[in-house]
Amino acid sequence: MERIEQHASFGGRQEVWRHDSRSTGTPMKFGIYLPPAALRGEQRPVLYWLSGLTCNEQNFITKAGAQPFAAAHELIIVAPDTSPRGEGVADDAAYDLGQGAGFYVNASEEPWAPHYRMQDYVAEELPALVEQHFAASGARGIFGHSMGGHGALVTALRHPGRYRSVSAFAPIAAPSQVPWGRKALAAYLGADADRWREWDAVRLLADAPERLPLLVDQGEEDEFLEQLRPDLLRRACAAAGHALDLRVRAGYDHSYYFIASFIGEHVAHHARALAA
Amino acid sequence: MERIEQHASFGGRQEVWRHDSRSTGTPMKFGIYLPPAALRGEQRPVLYWLSGLTCNEQNFITKAGAQPFAAAHELIIVAPDTSPRGEGVADDAAYDLGQGAGFYVNASEEPWAPHYRMQDYVAEELPALVEQHFAASGARGIFGHSMGGHGALVTALRHPGRYRSVSAFAPIAAPSQVPWGRKALAAYLGADADRWREWDAVRLLADAPERLPLLVDQGEEDEFLEQLRPDLLRRACAAAGHALDLRVRAGYDHSYYFIASFIGEHVAHHARALAA
Repeated sequence: MERIEQHASFGGRQEVWRHDSRSTGTPMKFGIYLPPAALRGEQRPVLYWLSGLTCNEQNFITKAGAQPFAAAHELIIVAPDTSPRGEGVADDAAYDLGQGAGFYVNASEEPWAPHYRMQDYVAEELPALVEQHFAASGARGIFGHSMGGHGALVTALRHPGRYRSVSAFAPIAAPSQVPWGRKALAAYLGADADRWREWDAVRLLADAPERLPLLVDQGEEDEFLEQLRPDLLRRACAAAGHALDLRVRAGYDHSYYFIASFIGEHVAHHARALAA
Repeated sequence: MERIEQHASFGGRQEVWRHDSRSTGTPMKFGIYLPPAALRGEQRPVLYWLSGLTCNEQNFITKAGAQPFAAAHELIIVAPDTSPRGEGVADDAAYDLGQGAGFYVNASEEPWAPHYRMQDYVAEELPALVEQHFAASGARGIFGHSMGGHGALVTALRHPGRYRSVSAFAPIAAPSQVPWGRKALAAYLGADADRWREWDAVRLLADAPERLPLLVDQGEEDEFLEQLRPDLLRRACAAAGHALDLRVRAGYDHSYYFIASFIGEHVAHHARALAA
């Protein structure tokens, strides 16, 4: 494990690390923000951020403006890359499949199966690594954007008891029912749509054994609404009696300008749950 | 003049515009943040940000995290590109000369003279354009980073009465005396170092007719300290009796993580002067 960047930031430190992942069989990078208390060695909760299509570990840490809120609440924030990468790793010319588009699943199909194990990576390997090497308390929250909003919802729903809080910005809430999701799930998991169920937040909500309240922000002018389907998320939560605070933001789009505008509210939401 | 980006941001709007500049004879781009009051048509002060080497109009608007402070203080922030660009524009293979490295001077030497008129652009053409097309009051502040910190100090010192406030992050304070500055000034202005004087903040301070107090933040772990020379700035201000609030920040480097950590204090500094 090698630290490849470190920058003082709001009294804490933004770092980037690279390590050899046994989940993906490739080097993986992640950003980690260590708030002042963590730098003093106090064990602090960890909030995991999952990024969207085309992103790597840099987008969130350079553009979201989360560090001042992480510092104020003394939370660690970890932001991994969105897929395995490298010359020996399967890829696709399209931006919405392959490298930069792992969808946080464990792929079963060729040519993806050998390396595309992002669910194992974000839900198991990465938290274990962080809790071993940093001043992490073991209390975890998870959030993300777009493909990473899907990842956050699905990862929390698949692992009851593992996270204390979950939220998302403009998540792909019903991947089985939209073009981005259908393409990726068919490639990674095969054509049988029954196998997609366990990777689809709207479908998992129906009989979720844990009932973490969902906080979701959605820009009303988001250019990808038909890929995200907050309407299906709202309906699924209503049908399941699952608490959803869906904040529809007039004028906002899908960009990091939208994320930055509301990241403070999301970090505060997680801080409340993680302090409880 | 053409708007090429617009994003809702903290209740205001981040936009990017492209226009044909008569100063540079090229298309130029600039970012402009319009706070909520400006969107309602109220005329607001404008703060000009000048970026550093290798930057274009995107770096500040995506990474500095200034928008929440601009919204809170109801200030417009304008962030132009750092040089003319394009196939017909002189360039150099090095990152510290040519495109992305205009140094905010008016070049007199070939091959730079035809397009490298960045001082005219940032001090005259751009403010006139902004004050014509947006809800700008005519009250102006200027700040910047590194090469752009140099640009902000020099532009304010060269134009008494034009700005009400000035500040800088890690400015190249004495370009005549450091490698980055000597290389650029020799190329753009010729080998006669006497002609560099009017583009060197430390030299201009000696007999500045206006005494705007300087706010400067400088990371103590900045990897480019020998190019910046805050010690010479401190000495020049002391010798001239020019007010300088030089904030040396332990642990901070030259990056946008440093800028973001203190941008709120700089915007507040300008807001106080611009409201007076």
